[in-house]
Amino acid sequence: MHVVLPDGTRLEVPAHATGADVSQAIGPGLAKAALGVKVDGRLSDLLSEVPQGAEVTVLTRKDAAVADLMRHTLAHVMAQAVREYFVQQGYEAQTVRMGIGPVIEHGFYYDFDLPRTLTPDDLGAIEQIMRRIVADDLELRKYELPRDEALERYRRTGDPFKQELIQDLPAGEPITFYEQGGEAGFTDLCRGPHVPRTGVIAPHFKLMSVAGAYWRGDERRPMLQRIYGVAFLTKDELEHHLWLLEEARKRDHRKLGRELGLFTFSEDIGAGLPVFFPRGEIVRFEMERYVRELQTRYGYQHVWTGHMVRESLYERSGHLENYADVMFPAMEDEEVRMRLKPMNCPSHMTLFNAGHHSYRELPLRYAEFATLYRYEKSGQLSGLTRVRSLTQDDCHIFCTEDQIQAEFSLALRLIREVLSTYRMTDYRVQLSLRGAEGKYVDDDEKWVKATAALRRALDAEGVPYEEASGEAAFYGPKADFMAKDALGREWQLSTIQVDFIQPARLGCSYIGEDGDKHVPVVLHRAVTGSTERFMGVMLEHFAGDLPLWLAPEHVRLVPIADRHLDYAAQVRERLLAAGLRSEIDDRSERMNAKVRDAELLKVPYIAILGDKEAEAGSVSFRSRKEPNRNGVPLQAFVDELAALVASRSAQAEEDAAPA
Amino acid sequence: MHVVLPDGTRLEVPAHATGADVSQAIGPGLAKAALGVKVDGRLSDLLSEVPQGAEVTVLTRKDAAVADLMRHTLAHVMAQAVREYFVQQGYEAQTVRMGIGPVIEHGFYYDFDLPRTLTPDDLGAIEQIMRRIVADDLELRKYELPRDEALERYRRTGDPFKQELIQDLPAGEPITFYEQGGEAGFTDLCRGPHVPRTGVIAPHFKLMSVAGAYWRGDERRPMLQRIYGVAFLTKDELEHHLWLLEEARKRDHRKLGRELGLFTFSEDIGAGLPVFFPRGEIVRFEMERYVRELQTRYGYQHVWTGHMVRESLYERSGHLENYADVMFPAMEDEEVRMRLKPMNCPSHMTLFNAGHHSYRELPLRYAEFATLYRYEKSGQLSGLTRVRSLTQDDCHIFCTEDQIQAEFSLALRLIREVLSTYRMTDYRVQLSLRGAEGKYVDDDEKWVKATAALRRALDAEGVPYEEASGEAAFYGPKADFMAKDALGREWQLSTIQVDFIQPARLGCSYIGEDGDKHVPVVLHRAVTGSTERFMGVMLEHFAGDLPLWLAPEHVRLVPIADRHLDYAAQVRERLLAAGLRSEIDDRSERMNAKVRDAELLKVPYIAILGDKEAEAGSVSFRSRKEPNRNGVPLQAFVDELAALVASRSAQAEEDAAPA
Repeated sequence: MHVVLPDGTRLEVPAHATGADVSQAIGPGLAKAALGVKVDGRLSDLLSEVPQGAEVTVLTRKDAAVADLMRHTLAHVMAQAVREYFVQQGYEAQTVRMGIGPVIEHGFYYDFDLPRTLTPDDLGAIEQIMRRIVADDLELRKYELPRDEALERYRRTGDPFKQELIQDLPAGEPITFYEQGGEAGFTDLCRGPHVPRTGVIAPHFKLMSVAGAYWRGDERRPMLQRIYGVAFLTKDELEHHLWLLEEARKRDHRKLGRELGLFTFSEDIGAGLPVFFPRGEIVRFEMERYVRELQTRYGYQHVWTGHMVRESLYERSGHLENYADVMFPAMEDEEVRMRLKPMNCPSHMTLFNAGHHSYRELPLRYAEFATLYRYEKSGQLSGLTRVRSLTQDDCHIFCTEDQIQAEFSLALRLIREVLSTYRMTDYRVQLSLRGAEGKYVDDDEKWVKATAALRRALDAEGVPYEEASGEAAFYGPKADFMAKDALGREWQLSTIQVDFIQPARLGCSYIGEDGDKHVPVVLHRAVTGSTERFMGVMLEHFAGDLPLWLAPEHVRLVPIADRHLDYAAQVRERLLAAGLRSEIDDRSERMNAKVRDAELLKVPYIAILGDKEAEAGSVSFRSRKEPNRNGVPLQAFVDELAALVASRSAQAEEDAAPA
Repeated sequence: MHVVLPDGTRLEVPAHATGADVSQAIGPGLAKAALGVKVDGRLSDLLSEVPQGAEVTVLTRKDAAVADLMRHTLAHVMAQAVREYFVQQGYEAQTVRMGIGPVIEHGFYYDFDLPRTLTPDDLGAIEQIMRRIVADDLELRKYELPRDEALERYRRTGDPFKQELIQDLPAGEPITFYEQGGEAGFTDLCRGPHVPRTGVIAPHFKLMSVAGAYWRGDERRPMLQRIYGVAFLTKDELEHHLWLLEEARKRDHRKLGRELGLFTFSEDIGAGLPVFFPRGEIVRFEMERYVRELQTRYGYQHVWTGHMVRESLYERSGHLENYADVMFPAMEDEEVRMRLKPMNCPSHMTLFNAGHHSYRELPLRYAEFATLYRYEKSGQLSGLTRVRSLTQDDCHIFCTEDQIQAEFSLALRLIREVLSTYRMTDYRVQLSLRGAEGKYVDDDEKWVKATAALRRALDAEGVPYEEASGEAAFYGPKADFMAKDALGREWQLSTIQVDFIQPARLGCSYIGEDGDKHVPVVLHRAVTGSTERFMGVMLEHFAGDLPLWLAPEHVRLVPIADRHLDYAAQVRERLLAAGLRSEIDDRSERMNAKVRDAELLKVPYIAILGDKEAEAGSVSFRSRKEPNRNGVPLQAFVDELAALVASRSAQAEEDAAPA
């Protein structure tokens, strides 16, 4: 038989050749460095046979993909270590039962049924045993067993989970095992792929946590203990990852929300329904005000359509059929069934339908900050990023087919301006198109035309994008913005979607230049997505240190003594008149304690007011961005701050610091 | 027997003396001028007996109260005229059956069961017959019949409604009739009071309309035809009333809402749920922005608590028990029952309870513009003034008992500033106190203290008020602002209520200076009431001609020819940059048509842009408040307008007109 190498070379190899055999056939140097292979683009290992005619790439330590081979083998190493750990403590080996142990992003896990609950302390000890097993450089071997023998093996050890896994394998599927360190070592039912020896595993791994996990994710099945580990090829990667985790923990918006007094959840209000304290309300208000101002400048109009509609509207729009799962239950009496709005489109189309429209009026851009209600499963709720009440910065643009490109361009520009203000400049755009198959609206001409318009708009605006075939909504193509936050985590935020269907379903029409009735195209567009979710993302992105214009409190006023309270009140009045938010700390605490408390609340400016300042009508202040400044005339301080706030520019804030 | 005159004089009169007898006993001149009497303060007539010892005031044409006597007699005159009218047309007299015919504010009505439906044309003819009956100067006579005879009379004529009325009279109650023009004239079952002769009725009456009305207001009973009439003592009063009606019709906010493109209702959305077009959204947004800015300036804080809560919260607060009628039905699944918020108080108290509070933090003023949902009966819905979705400018002030006066004062000042901005300067304040009986919270000290605090605050702020005993809420005293609009109609708008109960029910507490836990007092406060209702009132108050700052469009730009479109776009940009709202009328209509259309939309400024203006960089404009001005430099125009808008002063707008 033969295989094909990446450069196209045809290489003859013996029948049943493995990845190792192919490496060897290429050359002994490569064979020595080889850690795995890619077979027709899929990750495989040196122990597995390669199929006739396959394209084979040999992977060495230089290939990032081998990290996943190591992670997989580390899962086995961990399982071996856990068994050894319990045997050391006097338990029977068979009391350690195993579920599954897959590779995940950055690492691996394994689920165990153990004689006792693990503590974080156990993890250190297990990790030590793992390092010894790696150092022992155990060789891995792969082999296949007939179903009966495979089952028999786990019947002997009384291992119910593995038996179940084997029973669930389709007939005809080979049942393979990986053994490390011979029969005395550790053997696991596994499809692979793995590294050939434990000794090649990079030492940059770490066990992170243990958590309960239902067998097969089913809450009626036994609860197992899942140990998570991370593993990387280099020390730098591991350290960066650990830093990111620590940073993410510190930035967790739920933690920041509590610490900064922004929002809370209450059993009395209901799950997934955040309520906002005054400091948090300011942040959400400023966020919405900003998008509203921008939308007004870009020629969008705002409408108001409340929070509910008659259920019959969702029957006609098709939402009741396709979307009922995420709607709150109906409010029902003899008269009528009402539903909370899970989205605005049918309401905006109803508003559109309340008038007669000519092509001259198009495009009509109806924007609204409406709180929508979606009945997410309680298990999926998470802080502000997964809520049941979400206030979308939603817009529906009614336009002709010929206007799609221009409207799409306008929306792109608006979105980019907003993301740039929030310093989310690292983003990618995915243009989702219909696939070859699937339940896409059957109107070839419309798809072709709209897709071309979107491409032209993206090109004209210089927005790089990747196309994803088969990812479109059934009603038309769409573009999604995936933006990276300061920790490199990707969030799907803005979206623009073309809709060929709903306007027709709900009977939207306009009179064209030809005097005939036409159905408008509708673009669905959201900028930040929802205020709640975006606020959660921004809190983590800025680690709570929000840009000045978003800060709930611009200036904390710290009078040094009670005799400076009058002056503090004057300063507060002046700030208030300029639209600036400040609070006076009139507690009888020491100055340093007051400054520290303001810093904990991440107040951007802290003004110290003492005799000198009161006499001179000045302020001395410290800020997070610039060195301390003393004796700045009050009006200059107010003007400077007001200008910074008005600019909404994080850059300007930093530039404000005198050289 | 004797009666007592207003000056205290004791006057001897014969037994069974009537009002006429008393007048006669006083003097023949008065007897001639007399039209009715007041007996112990209650309106009565010359035909009825006065009781022994009663205080009797004789009424002449100079007493406003006699208008109601005339109105009542006019109802009988109308009934006589209707019967005559149908007989003229060949119907049997008995086919005209009668229900009731009472006096109402400004006039009277009578309900008829007629052989055919009346048209507005019929009303003119009926009114002519009424005028003849008045001119005939028929004398009225009052008499009593035993129940059997009374019933028999209507059995003979086959009049079911009158029979039912008699049957429903309690036993022992005299059954009285008023007859005018003798037996050949018209007789009606009636308690009175009436004028003594039809000839004394002032001719300033008019039949207004006919409408369907169920017998006794019960929709399962027959539908009758109700004719409404108005009647006054003087021509001026009648004319003023007709002008007010016409003006109110023109100002009807539902009509203006349609004409100005502000809002609409839709069957698809639901009854009582207004939706707002872009022009209407601007008005509501500006209204809320104004109160928000003011509240911030006055030291209120804004919170956000969404639109629903778990039903259990309303169980604890007591709302479910007392308020369930006006709540929307619950949203219910296995997990939980949710309710749309009909008010914010329990949500704000929940937010308060999320933290620990010291007396130092009080007062805490939680304000929110939350849309509340109240399930008003569909028959009671009316435009924006009675809706099911209402966005309150609500606030709950958590304070100590000692702070009630200061907080009440602050709220009073805020309310007065807002009402003054809206030119609602003619208002009265009703201070509602507990009554001697009733289900008032049983805490004498709290009532006395709070009532004194409210009185002191009203006095200190120089707000005149009247006290209404027995009108307080069960949870504490309150003050309501009743403001008169431009047509003199009174609207209940702002309210401040003291609450001794809910904070304790929901477990609100703070640590006092004494280190102990205390329950705060809560003041409920609304300024404009709800955005929707206030917008309706303001549209009528200003007849749609909203103050500049509220106008959906500040300036309509009218280019004279297509070659001025570029300049118009420049002007628009400049206006937009200054936060001013404008639209370009680029239709190919004549200039006059464009100006007229802008005037119909009540756009405050209309700028005409032609060659001169484009060359000079100026605008020529007309406005509703000032004479036309030509060649005003663009920037000067923008600055002037921006300053007017920022001032939010209707006065400044008028003063802007050069002398």
